[in-house]
Amino acid sequence: MLWARRPELASAIERTRRNEDYLPGVELPDRLRVTAELDAAVKGAEVVVVAVPSHGFRSVLEQAVPHLGAAVALVSVAKGLEEGTTLRMSEVAAEVAPGRPVAVLSGPNLAREVVAGHPTASVVASADGALATELQRLFSGATFRVYTNPDVVGCEVAGALKNVVAIAAGVSDGLGFGDNTRAALVTRGLAELGRLGVALGGDPLTFSGLAGMGDLVATCTSAKSRNHRVGVELGRGRRLDEILSGTRMVAEGVRTAPVAVELGRRLGVELPIAEEVVAVLAGQHTVADAIPRLMQREAKPELHGLRP
Amino acid sequence: MLWARRPELASAIERTRRNEDYLPGVELPDRLRVTAELDAAVKGAEVVVVAVPSHGFRSVLEQAVPHLGAAVALVSVAKGLEEGTTLRMSEVAAEVAPGRPVAVLSGPNLAREVVAGHPTASVVASADGALATELQRLFSGATFRVYTNPDVVGCEVAGALKNVVAIAAGVSDGLGFGDNTRAALVTRGLAELGRLGVALGGDPLTFSGLAGMGDLVATCTSAKSRNHRVGVELGRGRRLDEILSGTRMVAEGVRTAPVAVELGRRLGVELPIAEEVVAVLAGQHTVADAIPRLMQREAKPELHGLRP
Repeated sequence: MLWARRPELASAIERTRRNEDYLPGVELPDRLRVTAELDAAVKGAEVVVVAVPSHGFRSVLEQAVPHLGAAVALVSVAKGLEEGTTLRMSEVAAEVAPGRPVAVLSGPNLAREVVAGHPTASVVASADGALATELQRLFSGATFRVYTNPDVVGCEVAGALKNVVAIAAGVSDGLGFGDNTRAALVTRGLAELGRLGVALGGDPLTFSGLAGMGDLVATCTSAKSRNHRVGVELGRGRRLDEILSGTRMVAEGVRTAPVAVELGRRLGVELPIAEEVVAVLAGQHTVADAIPRLMQREAKPELHGLRP
Repeated sequence: MLWARRPELASAIERTRRNEDYLPGVELPDRLRVTAELDAAVKGAEVVVVAVPSHGFRSVLEQAVPHLGAAVALVSVAKGLEEGTTLRMSEVAAEVAPGRPVAVLSGPNLAREVVAGHPTASVVASADGALATELQRLFSGATFRVYTNPDVVGCEVAGALKNVVAIAAGVSDGLGFGDNTRAALVTRGLAELGRLGVALGGDPLTFSGLAGMGDLVATCTSAKSRNHRVGVELGRGRRLDEILSGTRMVAEGVRTAPVAVELGRRLGVELPIAEEVVAVLAGQHTVADAIPRLMQREAKPELHGLRP
């Protein structure tokens, strides 16, 4: 059962078995039903996948919660932090729908490639190990491989911050820099994900896994990544409002960057890439300065500050 | 002072100030002298950079050693393991030129981008901290940032094995799989670098740094990587001998893969990606089977086996 916010989109998908805006050319399964009625969509469901961008996550879940069963499992696939509260999506879910077990599905999972049947690996994270194993069984398919991980915090922080690093990598590409520069940014970016995640209680090993490094690499190197594309356009000299007005897709990193910086400052965690992305998005730094500034930041022993 | 093996190449570079085969269009500095005489090249040198592929490393160094000073520092930029002995290049150097301090320069450093002035970060690793700091000073430039790391083993194992993972990533790309599949392979590949490196005494943190993840990402995603290109051609169905006969460049991963597998077996370390690459290179497995086989290998908790 698929819910779509706009009734005209829901009926178009139900009728044509296609969602041309987001998955052009893909035939959806006959068994899939589509509705714009949130109550009908979630009523009786044992598992609800909340695939709503972070800025709409709370309000959609609030509308759904009167119709949710008491034991329904909520699976977040949103990758962002809530503006204002700096909460992770699983924390928002726990506030809005208390008592329901929560899990997070994350990893290098570009939707068009998943539906095309490319071999894909994913992680389902939950503090509830039995739920994680059940969701692993439910989501696994011939070409979609699901691993379990108890570390919800690490998976969510990685998923949110990788979009910010992808903007920086895109800026570098848009400026005409190559694979060396991007690889250095991705490496320093992974350290940044890890610092924030560990400060919030995440497991350092999560950042070397699919939801950390895996998703970071896919997002920073893929032409299909919306956040990377926003960075490329910035690097080519376009203004943020111009770029965003030209796309229907949501680039989560644009919203996440200032929230991550706020969180980092409160926790005393250095996030130089996120800080630089915020300054560029706000028009305070030029893109031409941003990448050299990040690259020339420190000439220290490489592992400085990483020892426990 | 640059040494080139072929006298005609040395005199062409000396005359034209260009090396058209390897760095087309690049003007070399006036101060650079070029010779095919190994004794003249190394005589009186305080630092010798050994930029010779791993299969020629020992023999070139043996020819040079009678002309080397007793305190000359040797810097290896070769990324491979010696066939027959499974030695790292710094171990070969210690055997051939005993008593000379040895360092390794590694990281995401595609040569054409370095000379183009793209911001690049690199690691110099040496057990001799003062030498590492001196080399950091020597190699650093406005766009070339050098970090130090005491972990020679980790940097060398990462540098050797990443070429093998790049062949696997190239096979995936050549088969038409996308960013999800490649990101999953890179993630499992990094775990593979780390397992072998730690078994040999490397520092786990090195694999999250520039010589580990950084170089792995650059090599697995760059169209400029020779190892990745060999994988792409294999994925498209070409035979290894056809591919290699069409290029003058050395794809180190082709030689390193079986040596790494030999080393892994001896140490009891699982290297599924390297094993699969060896089987494909030897014509024992088809490329069509290789990637699904790697992706479907395990449905375990993600961090299984990674805990110390």
